[in-house]
Amino acid sequence: METLWSSRYALRTRRMQSSMVRELLKLTEKPDMISFAGGLPAPEVFPVAEFREAADRVLAEFGPESLQYSTTEGSPKLREMIARHTARYGIVVQPENILITSGSQQALDLLGKVFVNSGDRIAVERPTYLGALQAWNAYQAQFLGVDMDDEGMRIEELESVLRSGPKFLYALPNFQNPTGVTMSLKRREILVEMADHYGVPIIEDDPYGQLRYDGEHLPSLNVLDARARDGRPFSGNVIYLSTFSKILAPGLRLAWVVAPVEVIKRLVQAKQGTDLHTGTFVQMVAYEIARGGFLDKHILLIRSVYGKRRSAILAALEKHMPPGVHWTKPRGGLFIWAVLPEQLDAAEILRDAIEELVAFVPGSAFYDDGTGKNTMRLNFSNATEEKIEEGIARLGGVCKRAIASLPAATQKTF
Amino acid sequence: METLWSSRYALRTRRMQSSMVRELLKLTEKPDMISFAGGLPAPEVFPVAEFREAADRVLAEFGPESLQYSTTEGSPKLREMIARHTARYGIVVQPENILITSGSQQALDLLGKVFVNSGDRIAVERPTYLGALQAWNAYQAQFLGVDMDDEGMRIEELESVLRSGPKFLYALPNFQNPTGVTMSLKRREILVEMADHYGVPIIEDDPYGQLRYDGEHLPSLNVLDARARDGRPFSGNVIYLSTFSKILAPGLRLAWVVAPVEVIKRLVQAKQGTDLHTGTFVQMVAYEIARGGFLDKHILLIRSVYGKRRSAILAALEKHMPPGVHWTKPRGGLFIWAVLPEQLDAAEILRDAIEELVAFVPGSAFYDDGTGKNTMRLNFSNATEEKIEEGIARLGGVCKRAIASLPAATQKTF
Repeated sequence: METLWSSRYALRTRRMQSSMVRELLKLTEKPDMISFAGGLPAPEVFPVAEFREAADRVLAEFGPESLQYSTTEGSPKLREMIARHTARYGIVVQPENILITSGSQQALDLLGKVFVNSGDRIAVERPTYLGALQAWNAYQAQFLGVDMDDEGMRIEELESVLRSGPKFLYALPNFQNPTGVTMSLKRREILVEMADHYGVPIIEDDPYGQLRYDGEHLPSLNVLDARARDGRPFSGNVIYLSTFSKILAPGLRLAWVVAPVEVIKRLVQAKQGTDLHTGTFVQMVAYEIARGGFLDKHILLIRSVYGKRRSAILAALEKHMPPGVHWTKPRGGLFIWAVLPEQLDAAEILRDAIEELVAFVPGSAFYDDGTGKNTMRLNFSNATEEKIEEGIARLGGVCKRAIASLPAATQKTF
Repeated sequence: METLWSSRYALRTRRMQSSMVRELLKLTEKPDMISFAGGLPAPEVFPVAEFREAADRVLAEFGPESLQYSTTEGSPKLREMIARHTARYGIVVQPENILITSGSQQALDLLGKVFVNSGDRIAVERPTYLGALQAWNAYQAQFLGVDMDDEGMRIEELESVLRSGPKFLYALPNFQNPTGVTMSLKRREILVEMADHYGVPIIEDDPYGQLRYDGEHLPSLNVLDARARDGRPFSGNVIYLSTFSKILAPGLRLAWVVAPVEVIKRLVQAKQGTDLHTGTFVQMVAYEIARGGFLDKHILLIRSVYGKRRSAILAALEKHMPPGVHWTKPRGGLFIWAVLPEQLDAAEILRDAIEELVAFVPGSAFYDDGTGKNTMRLNFSNATEEKIEEGIARLGGVCKRAIASLPAATQKTF
C-alpha cells in the first residue's frame, strides 16, 4: 500500500537491513529443524518454578507498586544488588554507576544515541556482535574492524586502528559473539594500555563472562584498566555491559550498564526519550528471584548443561566435518565459529542445510563490509547433546558435498 | 570523575535535558505530598488479583516459552487481539499492521529513528506531549507549534504550518496531554482534509481515548481520513498509537503502533537494533488478562473512578482558585491545564507549592521554545477526591498569594 509515509524515510534507514538472524529465528520454529542459528539459551534450564513463586510474591507483597511507572534509572534494590555482584569481580561501583536497560541491545542503542555523531568511527573486533552493528548503524557510524586470532584482536592492526582516533572501541573479551574467542590476559593488558596511550575509551560487552566451562576467569578490561591507571577500583574509561538474559531469562529483557555517574546521567536522559523506563514488574521479579543467592547456584547448573553441549558439538564437528573446515574451541559462552574453504559461500550452504533440517547463521552477518562469506556461527546452547550430534552429522554431510563439488585442484590446498 | 568519555558526547546530547517531569516524579514519593505532577494512573484500580492469576497461568501453561526470546513484532496472539479491539473503533487492520512497543514512548522513538533526519520539521500542537519533544529532539528535529483553543489546533495557523511542508504532523485528539483538550469533530474533519490536501501524513497518539467520562466518542483521525479518502477502513496516512499503560498498568511498558505494513517493517528493523523485542513474559501476561473481555469491564471501573476525580478537581478549582486563573474542563483523560496571569512564573509557584506539600508540572515543559511560563498541568487520576480537594486548596492558597503580590494595576486586568 503506497502512503504518504513511503517517501519520507530518514537517511539512516538506508543502512537498516532486516537481520538475517531474525529471519533465521523464524526457521527455528519449524518442527524437526535442528537449529544452531539463534543465540537462544536452553529453555529447559529456565527456573520456571522460581519465577512462579517470585511473580506471585511480588504481586502479593508489593501489588500496585509493581505495576506502576518507576524511575528511569531502574529499581534501586536491583541496582544495589548488581553493584554488590559486580564487586565480586573486582569492579567496585555504587548503585549510581548502574543503569538498568531493556536488554543489552538497549544499552548499545543508548550509547549510540549519547556518543555517536553521523560519520563517527568505532573500533570493533572483526567479526563482531551483529546487534552492535545494527544499533550503531542507526546513528550512521562507520566501523574500523580489527582482525582476530585465537587470543583476540591482533595487536598490530589494533594499534593502527587506535592511532586513527576512533570515538571508542567495542570489545567482547569473553567467549565472543560470534567467534567464541576469549581475549588472552596478555592481550587484555596490551589493549587497555594501548587504548589509554591513544586516549580511546572502551565499551566492554560481557554477556557470557560467567558461563565459563573450563580454565580460569580472566580479569575484565574494566578491572585491568583501573589497576593500571591509579589503583582505583573503577577507572570510568571502560564502560561495562552485562545482562540477565544468559544467566536468568532473556524474555525479561533485563540488562545493565556500569559507567561513570556523568555518563549514566546522559544515558538516563536518552532512555527517558526512548522507553521512559524498563518494566517495573520484571525488575522486581528478577530481584526477588536473585536476592537470596539463587543465581550462583543456577549458574552452576547452566555451566554444567552448556559445558556438556560445548563438548558434544566439538566432538561432533571432529567426527562429521570434512577436511577443509576449521573451527574455534571456546572455553565458555554459546558459540563456535567455523571457517569453510574460501571458495564456499555459507549462505548457499545454509540453503542446502535447511533442506536437511539443520540451520546456522552465515558469518557474513557479523561483518560490516559483507566479507566473511565462507564462515558460519554455530550456537550450542539450545539443542540437546543428541540433537547436536544429529545436527552436526547433517551439516557435515552438506559441507562434504559442497567441498566435493569444488574443482579437484582447489581441494588439494586444504 | 573526569574520564575519556567526557569529551565525546554526540551533538544531539546538547538538546537532551533532564526532564522536569522525572525530577518531579521523585517528589511524589515524599510522604504527605499531594501530587498533581506525574501522569500516574491510580494504583488502587490496578487489577492485582487478575495479574497474580494471569502470571501464574502463563508460567504454568507456557513455562519456558514465556521466558525465552521472541519476535521483534510482538506476540502474534496479542497483535491479533489488538487488531480485533481496534476494529471496534472503525480501524480495520490485520495483525501485520501492528507492532508491540515497550510503551508508547518507544513508538515515538522508533518513529523518530525511521523518519526524522536532522533538521526535519514536525508539526505539533502547542503545547504538546513532552515525551514526543524528547524523543524527536534526540533526532535533532525542529518543531512547528500550532496554537490551540477549546476545540483543538487553530485552523489558520494549522494551514500555514501544513503549507510549509513538515515531515509529518503529530496530534493527540482525545483529552490531550498536557491540556486535556479534545479536538472537535469539525476540526478533525478539517485537519484530515487539510493534511491530505498538503500531503502531510499524521501520527495520531491516543493513550486516553477510552477514558471518556462524558459526551460521545468521536471518530479517530485515522477513521476520518480513511473514510474521506476512498472508503477503505485504513488509509495508512495516519499512523495510530495506543497503549495498555492507562487501561491496564504502565509498569508493564506495553503499547502498540498501527501503521501500513511497509512502515511496520521499517519500525521492526529499527526496534531490532533498539531493544530486540518487548518482554515475552509481560506480553503473555497482558494477553492472558485481557483475552476474556476483562478490559471492557475494567475500563468502566477506571472511567467511574477517574470521572469522579475529574469532577472533584473541577469543583475544587472553582472553589479555591483566585480570579485570574483559568483552566480547561476535560471530558476525559488525566489532565487539566491551568493558565495563570501572564506575569506569574509557574516554576516559582511550584517552589512555593512544594513547601506547602503540593506539586504540579510547570507548563513550559510542554513547549519546545520555553514559552508557556504562566501555565501548569494538573493530573487528577492519582489522588483520591479528598486529597484533590485538600491539594487544590493548598495550591489555590499559593496562587492567591502570588497574585496578591503582583502590582495592583496588573491585578485589575483579570
